[in-house]
This record gives sequence, structure tokens and C-alpha cells, in this order.
Amino acid sequence: MAKQRPRTLSGFMELLPARQAQFERMAELLRRSYALYGFTPLDTPIIEASEVLLAKAGGETEKQIYRFTKGDSDLSLRFDLTVPLAKYVALHYADLSFPFRRFQIGKVYRGERAQRGRFREFYQADIDVIGDGKLDIVNEAEIPAIIYHTFTALGLERFQIHVNDRKLLNGFFSMLHLEEKSGDVMRTVDKLPKIGPDKVRELLMADGVSLSQEQADEILKFISITGSNDEILNALEEYRGRHGSFDQGLDELSTVVRYLSAFGVPEDHFVVDLTIARGLDYYTGSVYETFMLDHPEIGSICSGGRYDNLAEYYTDKQLPGVGISIGLTRLFYVLEEQGYLNDELDTAPADVLIFPMTDDMAPAITLATRLRAEGIRAQLYTEQKKFKQKMTYADRLGVPYTAFLGEDEIAQGKVSLKDMTTGEQRLMAADEVPAQILPTLDARRAAAPIREPEKI
Amino acid sequence: MAKQRPRTLSGFMELLPARQAQFERMAELLRRSYALYGFTPLDTPIIEASEVLLAKAGGETEKQIYRFTKGDSDLSLRFDLTVPLAKYVALHYADLSFPFRRFQIGKVYRGERAQRGRFREFYQADIDVIGDGKLDIVNEAEIPAIIYHTFTALGLERFQIHVNDRKLLNGFFSMLHLEEKSGDVMRTVDKLPKIGPDKVRELLMADGVSLSQEQADEILKFISITGSNDEILNALEEYRGRHGSFDQGLDELSTVVRYLSAFGVPEDHFVVDLTIARGLDYYTGSVYETFMLDHPEIGSICSGGRYDNLAEYYTDKQLPGVGISIGLTRLFYVLEEQGYLNDELDTAPADVLIFPMTDDMAPAITLATRLRAEGIRAQLYTEQKKFKQKMTYADRLGVPYTAFLGEDEIAQGKVSLKDMTTGEQRLMAADEVPAQILPTLDARRAAAPIREPEKI
Repeated sequence: MAKQRPRTLSGFMELLPARQAQFERMAELLRRSYALYGFTPLDTPIIEASEVLLAKAGGETEKQIYRFTKGDSDLSLRFDLTVPLAKYVALHYADLSFPFRRFQIGKVYRGERAQRGRFREFYQADIDVIGDGKLDIVNEAEIPAIIYHTFTALGLERFQIHVNDRKLLNGFFSMLHLEEKSGDVMRTVDKLPKIGPDKVRELLMADGVSLSQEQADEILKFISITGSNDEILNALEEYRGRHGSFDQGLDELSTVVRYLSAFGVPEDHFVVDLTIARGLDYYTGSVYETFMLDHPEIGSICSGGRYDNLAEYYTDKQLPGVGISIGLTRLFYVLEEQGYLNDELDTAPADVLIFPMTDDMAPAITLATRLRAEGIRAQLYTEQKKFKQKMTYADRLGVPYTAFLGEDEIAQGKVSLKDMTTGEQRLMAADEVPAQILPTLDARRAAAPIREPEKI
Repeated sequence: MAKQRPRTLSGFMELLPARQAQFERMAELLRRSYALYGFTPLDTPIIEASEVLLAKAGGETEKQIYRFTKGDSDLSLRFDLTVPLAKYVALHYADLSFPFRRFQIGKVYRGERAQRGRFREFYQADIDVIGDGKLDIVNEAEIPAIIYHTFTALGLERFQIHVNDRKLLNGFFSMLHLEEKSGDVMRTVDKLPKIGPDKVRELLMADGVSLSQEQADEILKFISITGSNDEILNALEEYRGRHGSFDQGLDELSTVVRYLSAFGVPEDHFVVDLTIARGLDYYTGSVYETFMLDHPEIGSICSGGRYDNLAEYYTDKQLPGVGISIGLTRLFYVLEEQGYLNDELDTAPADVLIFPMTDDMAPAITLATRLRAEGIRAQLYTEQKKFKQKMTYADRLGVPYTAFLGEDEIAQGKVSLKDMTTGEQRLMAADEVPAQILPTLDARRAAAPIREPEKI
């Protein structure tokens, strides 16, 4: 028969079993972390009616959409989890309780140009808190806590959450009469870490942005405000009283910083950063970006912010919210590339691999059944293979324990249990096995999926 | 602004939060159950190249495919999890260890005619064991154990797994020289529960199937073999020695039944059923169907079987396997329809809802942080609302506990904890809260998602 060459589309992540186990562990920890903060899991269709999904989209996004017809229907695959959330909240408004806190981990689709590290199908892991009409500032202070807790649970240590406030930023630009140019200015400011302040000043005054000397100096002065969070907030107080929006933004930012320690976020993991703005016009208050300290070149690994109007394309209801998104597939790819995946993580499909050494499989099956009842993942290996091949199989799977059941063991009601890490083999009663291995399994299971490489 | 009416496509399940929490609990228990048997989680793209995905498909399936082009690529959405598994195993053959045991819970797409209870996007929850060249019969005996354990873990009690063997069936048809007509015969036999044996005999002898009186009698005699599993196997022994395939099938079936009790499957949950065959030509050994005893009209809720050649469209390698599939979305729909979803299941997004009663939120935030550190899901309610509205929110979310922090409580370092089930409210030290509520939360969390309705 002619064979079809099997292949997976480029831009689509497909992992081998051990890697997949690491990915699943990350997703599980995200679910657990989000749940600790009172978010409810949500799932929405991957396919939506194009007119619904694209009510707002345009430009670059629209070009990347997977859009097609089936019968009479014009359909599209979702390209993020925010638009489906907006649709969901507008559609089910009467059945929801606000503030509505949901998390969603799901695949989204963007037909980007294929290149290394770019994915056309990728997981996003989002949380959002949606208010009905209003939403208290405490929610904006809680978000960095969730980011902190989540990455810490994953095993990441050297990261920092950067926070700014769009009201403060917009207010500042208004003081300088630069409302119209704020986009250009922020894009230029964004280059600061790469090109330095002098070049930034030059670009701000060049054709295009065309700021005056005085405006450029003010901006350079503003973005050079650094130090501890308290020092930054104190420096910002100097601007107070000149613009309402600035003052409101400063109040918000101060509140966010003030509640941080109560939320358990160490000061060194959280910085006020006046240079971040987030591209989208969408955000109206706090904005967040998260950076790996040793890999700033990767960019933000968790971003989001406060918005005033989640579902304005679907409803007249004012639905303000605050949310963040982790690009999980890309993050996983980066962590693998940079050697951040913890190879000590338990990725074996079983805790105990049982080798029956007799024709009658019943004793081995009984052992497996008993172990499973204790919550131990047990696999029977019943293929007719040489001993060496069986051991190779156990090694490749990475199982921590193997159990042998021969005539002798069965006659004595015992089992030969081998610790695959130490190589030690001991004869013990089958009943003893759970107590013997469960504590070691608990330790294995508690391992974090990320382990930062040792610095030299 | 003109609004786009929000809607979700028909045939796409989108659940409200409490229902979604029940669905998630089911999926979590499936993952846990599959993992206990040594299956590793797998994830494959939802989009595949059409020539890869449709290498085998044809007829009804092909018409239902979501197929479209993007740029130069002819793409299709997967319509099951078996074809992607075949592709995966053929593609990654050199990196896998056999037997390869994987589970996958994922969405698949079929553009079926829209009708109540039919879904175009639905979850399948599959397990498969794939051998390299050979695969031991013990794997076929283990499958009913996995089905039994899985549904029991979900809370279902009144179900039965039906097992037959295709070799036995094919051997039997060969004895009667009915190889060519076996499909027609089985389709007719399938009507037995509805129309009774006399009508079946009539149809078997009518134009179309056109069996002789003697052949029809033999078939009626065969399918009327019922009783305990041992009684059925004894009756089948009468046929031994007349056809090699039959004898082999009988050996397999006997082995499967013999190992059942070692696998912990009670006899009353497992029946040899000579009338099931599974539509697909694909299956070559054991076949399984699972029925809810009180709702046979729903049909099989978990089906599968043994096959000889998983990936013949992609590779010359002989890759036999055995697997089962649960149509999770449809099962969930049916369970809801029939009143099988356990309304006692904890679907609240938080264990404790905290109401700060002071302007300074720091004490409430500190309490939330402390509870979360103990694994308690805590949510802060910080909106400015009337007390009654706050209580309504707590009730609608279904949280088991609320905590109030006013001036008095803060001054004493205490918290007023209200048990929302009993209505009892107690003042206690914040440190006492975890010990007070964690045991009750454990009990809530252990609840099964399915609870069978009381029979009248």
C-alpha cells in the first residue's frame, strides 16, 4: 500500500512524552495557582462565527485569522481568549455574578509567518476579573500577586513584574501637550535599554516625532525616574496637581504598591517602571509586564492590565476589568531553549513497572490492582522480551521503581522491589510496598517544572 | 456604537461557570484514572495537513470534516484522536518506547447536522496501548478494568461493560460460510433488543441478507447464549475445533474473563455479549461497549477494541494496539439531561469569600494571603455594595465560608467566620481558620461529579 508521509505542520508544537509531561505539569500548576485566587475555569469554543469574533479586530490581526466557510457559515478560529470572554460575558450576562473572575487555558490560532519559536497554534493562559459598571482598585493590586505566586510555583525565581499606570502616563503627556504623539513617544522610549538616553532624545526630536528640546528633556527626565518603588512614587509626587488624570494614576499606582507586601510580593520582584505602556489602546489603568532577569531579550512573559470596556462591541453594559495572559506555548519553548526545564521532574508514565516472571499473570495483576488502589501509578509489562530489553524499557520510561514477581516471590507472598535510582533491590511483602515508596513519590511529584540554570 | 449580537454557534457546548466546574472535575478524574494505569498524557495539533489527516478517511467522515485553505496549505481539523495518534506514532516511532501507552483528552470536530445533543465540537477522552509488532492479550483484559475504575471514580454505579471478540465472531461466521454477509447479519442482530428473536430471524431470511433457515437458526442459537460469563464461555466451548479463528477468539475471551477479578472488576459490571461487534472493520480482537443500566437508549458511553494495524497508512511497521474512547461532551450532556450530575459537588470558585469592613484593605489582604498559603482558595470582595448584595453574591457563588473583618476583629487579631451551610458565625483567630475549615473542604473536594438519581 502507498504510504502517506506523516508530518506535523510547521508552527504547531507537538511534544514527545517526557516533554509533554513537563508541559502538563506547568498547566496543572497554573490551574491550581489561578484557583487559589478564586478564579473559576472556563472553556469556550475554538470556532466562532466570523462576524462575532471579528466585531472588533482589524489590521494585522485580521490577516492572521484562520477563517473559512462550512456550509453557509462564515467561521473563524479564535486568535486570543479575550474576545471569546467578551462574547461570553455579554451573552451570559444575566447568569453571571460580578465581579466575575475566570481563568482559561486554551489553544488560539494565528497564521503568522513560520519561523523558529513562532507558533500558529499556541496555548494562552489567561485570568480576568470583570466588574459590572465598576471594579475596585484592589483587583489591580492583586494581579502582581497572582503573577508572583504563579511563576514562583512553577519554580522561576529570577523574574520581575513591571507596573505602570496608563492614567498617569496619559496625564503626563497631556501636561506636555503631547496627547497626539504619545504612541510615537512611547515606541521611541521603548528603545531606551538598547540605544541609551542620548539616542532616544535625538530620535524624539528628529522628523517624525518632532518634539521640542524642552519636551524631549521633560520626557528624558520622567523616564529616568528610577530607584525603589517608594523613591519613584515620591519623585512622581513632584508632578501632582498639574493634571487630574496624572493625579488619579499616581493614586492608583501608590495603592497598588502599598498593598503589595500584604499580598506577599517581595519588593525585589516588583518595580514601578514608567517606560512600559503596553501597545494596545485598550488599557486604561495599571499595566503589567514580566521579565526574566537573565533573559530580558525574550521580552515580557506575562502581560496585561486594566481596561474600562471589555465587551463594548457586543453590549451597552459598562464592563471594566483587569487581566493578564501568559503565552504558555512560547514560554515553554523559551524555557526549553534556555535550559530552564527541570530534568529532575517526574515525567515517567508510571511509578512502578511490574514484571511478571510466571505464565500466570494473576499475581502480578493483583499487585498492580492493589498499588493503584493506593494511588500508585502501576504498569504491567507483559510482553515476551529478553530481560535486558525489559530493563531498557524501564530506563527509557524513567520509572522510579520496578517490581519482579517470580515463582519464589509468589510462593512467599512477596515482591522484589527495585529502586531504579539507587539500584537497590529488596524482597518485601506486597503490603509493604505503598508505605515504602509513597513518601519518595510525594517528593518526586512536588518538584517544580522550572529550575534555573546554575550561573558560573 | 452599533453592537454585534453575541452568540455561540449551534452544536458547540459552552457552559456556565458551575456546570463548567463539574465538567472540569470529570476531566480531572479521567486524567487521574488513566494515569493510575500508566498512561502518559499527549497533546497533538487540532489542525493537520489534509493529506495526512485524510489518508484513510472516506465516505461519511470526509463529508463532515472542517477543511479549508490558508495560504497554500490544505488544512483540516481533526475529527477524532486516533488518526493523530497514528500519525504521531509513525512520525516519532524512533523516539518512543513500546508498548506505548498514551491518553489524550481533546476537542475534535465533525460538521454533523445540528440537532439536540449532537455536537460539532466535542471532547474525546481516549486511551490506547500500542505495541511494536506484538501486543500481549493482558492489555485487552486490562481495558475493562480501566473502564470500570474510571466510571466508578466519576460516581457512576449502574453500568455494565460488554465484551466480545472479533476473531470468535469472524470464526463463527466462517463456520456458516457467511464471511461476506457478516456485516449485514450483525446489523440485523443489533436490532434484537428492540424487535425480539422472531423478527430478527425473519429479517435474516428476507431479501437482502437472504440466509437459509439453517443459517438463521444457527445465528439465533448463537446469540441466545446468555448467562454468567462462565456459562457463556462453557457454551462456546461446544463450538471449539471447528475453526481456528473461532478457537483463538475463544481463548482470548476466556483469558480476558479469567483475569477480571485480579483486575478488581466485579462480575456484575462485566458481561460477555455475543451481539456486539463494533461497526468498524478496524477491530480484530476484543471489542468493548459500555452501557448505563438505566439508560440503554443512550447507547454505548465508552467503546473500543483491539486492532492490528494502527498506522498502516503512514508506515510499514506493524503497530497493533487496543484502545477505548469516551465521548466526553456527549456524555456530559446526557448526564445533565438525565439528572445524573451531582449538585452537591463543590463548584464554587473560592472556599472563603473575604469581606473587608474597613477602608484599609491590608488586614483582609493579609488574611487572604495566609489562607492561600495553606491551599485554601480565597477571594477578596472589595466592591462598595450593600451588605445584602454582598450576601447575595456569596450565595450565588456557593462559597462554603465567608469571613468578615471589621474594626473589632482587626483590633483583636481575629476574624468572623461564617459557615454558609449552617449559617453559624464564629469569631476566631485568623490562625485557627485553616484547621477549622480544611477538613470540611477535603470532604467537599472528594465528592464525585456523578450521582445516580434515586429510584422511586
